[in-house]
Amino acid sequence: MNEDAIIRKLRRHAPLIGDDCAVVQGPRNQDLLFTTDFSIEGVHFTRGAPAGQIGRRAVARSLSDIAAMGGSPLYCLISLALGPWTDQSWIDGFYHGVNQLLSQTKTQLAGGDISHANQLVCDVMLCGAVRKGKALRRSGAKVDDIIYVSAPLGGWRHKREIVPRLDIGRALIGKATSCMDISDGLALDLHRLCRASGVAAEIDAVPLLERATVEQALHDGEDYELVYTAPPKRRVPGIRIGSITKGHPGALRYLGKKLAPTGYDHLQQRS
Amino acid sequence: MNEDAIIRKLRRHAPLIGDDCAVVQGPRNQDLLFTTDFSIEGVHFTRGAPAGQIGRRAVARSLSDIAAMGGSPLYCLISLALGPWTDQSWIDGFYHGVNQLLSQTKTQLAGGDISHANQLVCDVMLCGAVRKGKALRRSGAKVDDIIYVSAPLGGWRHKREIVPRLDIGRALIGKATSCMDISDGLALDLHRLCRASGVAAEIDAVPLLERATVEQALHDGEDYELVYTAPPKRRVPGIRIGSITKGHPGALRYLGKKLAPTGYDHLQQRS
Repeated sequence: MNEDAIIRKLRRHAPLIGDDCAVVQGPRNQDLLFTTDFSIEGVHFTRGAPAGQIGRRAVARSLSDIAAMGGSPLYCLISLALGPWTDQSWIDGFYHGVNQLLSQTKTQLAGGDISHANQLVCDVMLCGAVRKGKALRRSGAKVDDIIYVSAPLGGWRHKREIVPRLDIGRALIGKATSCMDISDGLALDLHRLCRASGVAAEIDAVPLLERATVEQALHDGEDYELVYTAPPKRRVPGIRIGSITKGHPGALRYLGKKLAPTGYDHLQQRS
Repeated sequence: MNEDAIIRKLRRHAPLIGDDCAVVQGPRNQDLLFTTDFSIEGVHFTRGAPAGQIGRRAVARSLSDIAAMGGSPLYCLISLALGPWTDQSWIDGFYHGVNQLLSQTKTQLAGGDISHANQLVCDVMLCGAVRKGKALRRSGAKVDDIIYVSAPLGGWRHKREIVPRLDIGRALIGKATSCMDISDGLALDLHRLCRASGVAAEIDAVPLLERATVEQALHDGEDYELVYTAPPKRRVPGIRIGSITKGHPGALRYLGKKLAPTGYDHLQQRS
């Protein structure tokens, strides 16, 4: 069973799952956004990676979900199951990376849990806020909308570090018709956006990170850039990559040819 | 390094950790409570346990933290890293237990993450609310206060299932001087409460579950009852077990003899 199939089944159990964050009623004129993301040794990172980078990335993945909804981060909870090999200096390095990014994004570390497991497991929960009723969704793309990405793509191999696109997300409020973050590759994530919106997409050009290939940009994970749509005459930041078309919901074409919606699948490693 | 030592070090990284939940400003006259709790195969449960019971318990642990602050639960996020042995019927059973308890406590399942690991790892995040400035804390116990528990103790061995004490917690608002939940045994958790309050405690009597021993009630984990303090003349629900005394912060006596603050340590298994 792949990730989308399991998530479809889970949706029966948790009906609010679907966008990058859950949206619930918040204080005054705000909605609250909730998101949670695992970072698991051997799945999301390898043991040898610098502890600070693992910490920074674990938080960046959740911040990117807040960005994808046009929100601002408020509070963060970090649950950490230490691996048998984890020592105090690793923990210090991990939290150095965590706190650096939290402080850059004005997010408060509010708590967490600590335990142990056979491999290191981190779960980052973020609570953010967005103007009531204004959260960006996956489901609003319309035929003839232009498709944009926030920056060149190519997957984690070609990236020094993830920069959550909070400023771009906020700038898209009231302008973009749909938005999500690219965590599993442009093809798979744009497919999800199109399916949620009941439309198809034609990609004309894929902006690439230095040394990245089109194949990597389309099907590799962990870009954590935003992909979003807006009507043709509306001015939005970002790089134009194609347009929304009529067609089977979720169907993709690249330079006129059918494009398979394959990408990084955290349950199957590669779908 | 044991759990308290690691948590003391983590507190430098996450200053809000200390009570059962983090307390942050919420809508109107409310504070929001956040808590997160792992349930890990081989640490918090064994693989053979019924899936529904594992799900119910995973949620109950976090609900108990909300109860310990006098709060009401609102939203729940569940992150689930499936083990290699997990199948669809296990997932269905797990969510059956989860949803049963969430519906009984009027808590909305708002989302989560899904991944895989070498062992099953579940992380439950709960967001609750409490009247502004009224959350119950660990740190308010005063000399001569009476100590109470919400029900007889004895640890998970003697319990059919955890019942989060939300009603009792809410009834203690404005009455109890301190409160926390007993997750790691009465001795260790009362020690933590006394240390946070700068006081000592004398236990006179320990109410026991059927077939449980005093040793189990004092030092076994997973009771998830509340332990709390109130001035002698104030009427509160629960069972009286002793009183707060002057002395080295955190020092405990049981029937006049010094009592070691040992209990269940999720990092060391048994401290």
